[in-house]
Amino acid sequence: MEYPQGFSFSTASCGFKKPDRDDLGLIVSQSGAACAGVFTKNRFQAAPVLVAKQHLAFKKPVRAIVINSGQANACTGEEGIAACRKTTELIAKLVGCDPQQVLPASTGVIGDQLKMEKWQTGLTQLQANMDQKQPEAVAKAMMTTDTFPKLLTKTLRTEKGEIRLLGMAKGAGMICPNMATMLGFILCDARVEPQWWQDALARAVDNSFNRITVDGDTSTNDCVLALANGASSVSVSKELEQKFEAALTDLCQELAYRIIQDAEGGTKVLRIRVSGAKTEADAALAAKAVGNSPLVKTALYGRDPNWGRIVAALGRSGADFHPEQVCVAIAGNTIFKAGTPVGGDWDTVLAPALSHSEVEISLILGNGAGSFSLLASDLSEDYVRINAEYRS
Amino acid sequence: MEYPQGFSFSTASCGFKKPDRDDLGLIVSQSGAACAGVFTKNRFQAAPVLVAKQHLAFKKPVRAIVINSGQANACTGEEGIAACRKTTELIAKLVGCDPQQVLPASTGVIGDQLKMEKWQTGLTQLQANMDQKQPEAVAKAMMTTDTFPKLLTKTLRTEKGEIRLLGMAKGAGMICPNMATMLGFILCDARVEPQWWQDALARAVDNSFNRITVDGDTSTNDCVLALANGASSVSVSKELEQKFEAALTDLCQELAYRIIQDAEGGTKVLRIRVSGAKTEADAALAAKAVGNSPLVKTALYGRDPNWGRIVAALGRSGADFHPEQVCVAIAGNTIFKAGTPVGGDWDTVLAPALSHSEVEISLILGNGAGSFSLLASDLSEDYVRINAEYRS
Repeated sequence: MEYPQGFSFSTASCGFKKPDRDDLGLIVSQSGAACAGVFTKNRFQAAPVLVAKQHLAFKKPVRAIVINSGQANACTGEEGIAACRKTTELIAKLVGCDPQQVLPASTGVIGDQLKMEKWQTGLTQLQANMDQKQPEAVAKAMMTTDTFPKLLTKTLRTEKGEIRLLGMAKGAGMICPNMATMLGFILCDARVEPQWWQDALARAVDNSFNRITVDGDTSTNDCVLALANGASSVSVSKELEQKFEAALTDLCQELAYRIIQDAEGGTKVLRIRVSGAKTEADAALAAKAVGNSPLVKTALYGRDPNWGRIVAALGRSGADFHPEQVCVAIAGNTIFKAGTPVGGDWDTVLAPALSHSEVEISLILGNGAGSFSLLASDLSEDYVRINAEYRS
Repeated sequence: MEYPQGFSFSTASCGFKKPDRDDLGLIVSQSGAACAGVFTKNRFQAAPVLVAKQHLAFKKPVRAIVINSGQANACTGEEGIAACRKTTELIAKLVGCDPQQVLPASTGVIGDQLKMEKWQTGLTQLQANMDQKQPEAVAKAMMTTDTFPKLLTKTLRTEKGEIRLLGMAKGAGMICPNMATMLGFILCDARVEPQWWQDALARAVDNSFNRITVDGDTSTNDCVLALANGASSVSVSKELEQKFEAALTDLCQELAYRIIQDAEGGTKVLRIRVSGAKTEADAALAAKAVGNSPLVKTALYGRDPNWGRIVAALGRSGADFHPEQVCVAIAGNTIFKAGTPVGGDWDTVLAPALSHSEVEISLILGNGAGSFSLLASDLSEDYVRINAEYRS
């Protein structure tokens, strides 16, 4: 993979939750980077979310992002905030910058205080491993119940040279749209105008991470941070903005797809496309009701084309529509139209499609031009097993 | 049990879904009864819901309720409505009344057309079994994934004589508040003023069936019907109204409790009490977010006092509150207060309470007097197993 220039990476194994695995990751930009950030809309915001937002407000060029897994540092009060600040001070010393140029992010169990004595060990390791690690090591260090690291690169060729983008994310559970979801980091070596960079990130997140759902639960720690350090010396000019934003959105959408691929207890990706809705908001209500319905999710896990559950979820979604205008298709086969079932041996016809790793569910509401597309996971016994045992 | 006077019951085994079990039930009131009804708010309303509402609109005294399990007759278009009307005509002939005096109710798989040839067999059996069956047989005939029939009686002693109430309900899955949930039938031998009866039922349902959740999914077939046939010759006078409504509400709450006790894949009842909210609507938002959170449900199934998930669900609920004023208790033990965890070895302390068949979760939001109480089920692997296999 071709990584963006001017970033270095380090990891450490602190034993925050489990021994013998990296659980602390560090991203350093060799020069100050423009940073855009999008954060959870949960009213309980974790200490690292609050501290990162404060640091960003100073509008200083960012030098480092430090990420730990195993402890979320959420709902930990003043003590949690003080501990989080302390970690940014320690990293600032290591990197040689101001603490306000360091952004923290955490994921793990809510409510535990940071284990500061373990951070001390971690810092020694981070220092020793500096410049020795690849970005994939950081993507691995932030995993919780994820089963694979999510890492992607994109290269944009311009007349003035190459711009490289790198994205990494962690997902798995407590994933629901209408926020910037879980942890996502985007690194880029372009020179950008900071306000445009923030706006472009917000739009890209809205079209990617905010259109996925595992369990309808919005985390306290979600954040997406995007650094642009200018190391390529290529500026994103007005002419380049559109192309660049398209690449950024692609990157976010591909990372979001991987989060759903790797959803806790998920076995397939459900692509729910709602169109013909009165407004985009109606389309979003419909898509989310279907994508979060435990009955729809379990049916599709069981390879059962039980469209009645899809229609029932739509009916309670709050979206405005007329039942007799609705059309529902599974994997391209229309099975419900004009208020009545379309005849067919759907159990047999749809069996192969329902065994694929991705299944498309299309709902055409027939009373407007609003549309919304959502990626959702299905729901297997493993989701229950993982989450009944997650802490222990 | 003491049943209300003037009602008779019959059942039949039609083989709608499975052979060798009753799946058709009939309740007959010997004289015309005042009938109150509350129906699902799902936009897709099943044929029996639409027909029952039409029949009720004629304001004729009701003589019979006919209930089948195994086929919901929902999303079946004009054909489904015609079939439903036909069944009320057949029952009217059997009972000797006008079809508009017969109310239909169905539960089962959405989207299948009624198997009319099987109804013919059922009618012969219904006729043969008339007056031969107890109410419990009807409560059993309407079960789908329920594991026990839900049947309750109450007797109200007044100066003028006794009034008897009988309630029966079926629940299991596709259960979510903000509607009259699933099938519930209340029979009573009092004389009532029809408008008051309707209002009293609506209030009782709002305080019982509308405050439970299994999976957040609202069915297309939900209805609660209440017959009062006057066979006791006791009128519900102004003086008696309050006492009578309290008994009706009690009956509904106890039936609602049993629905959650018997929730698909549930192992315990979660009693979620939200108080100190800005408004009752805020309290309801908070309670429903917690009660529908798959992460909260799986943690409590796993006997894990993982309050972080409760707090995270509250944070995304949309309820208005200040995080630092929130207080959370599990089984009477305050574990989160003023934005910070309360120290304690909660895994050990709460272990016995989390093994009980009912666990109370209390959230005090600290910015008003709004309150809401919700009963929710937990979520085990069995919910997934049942719903991945339900149709097959």
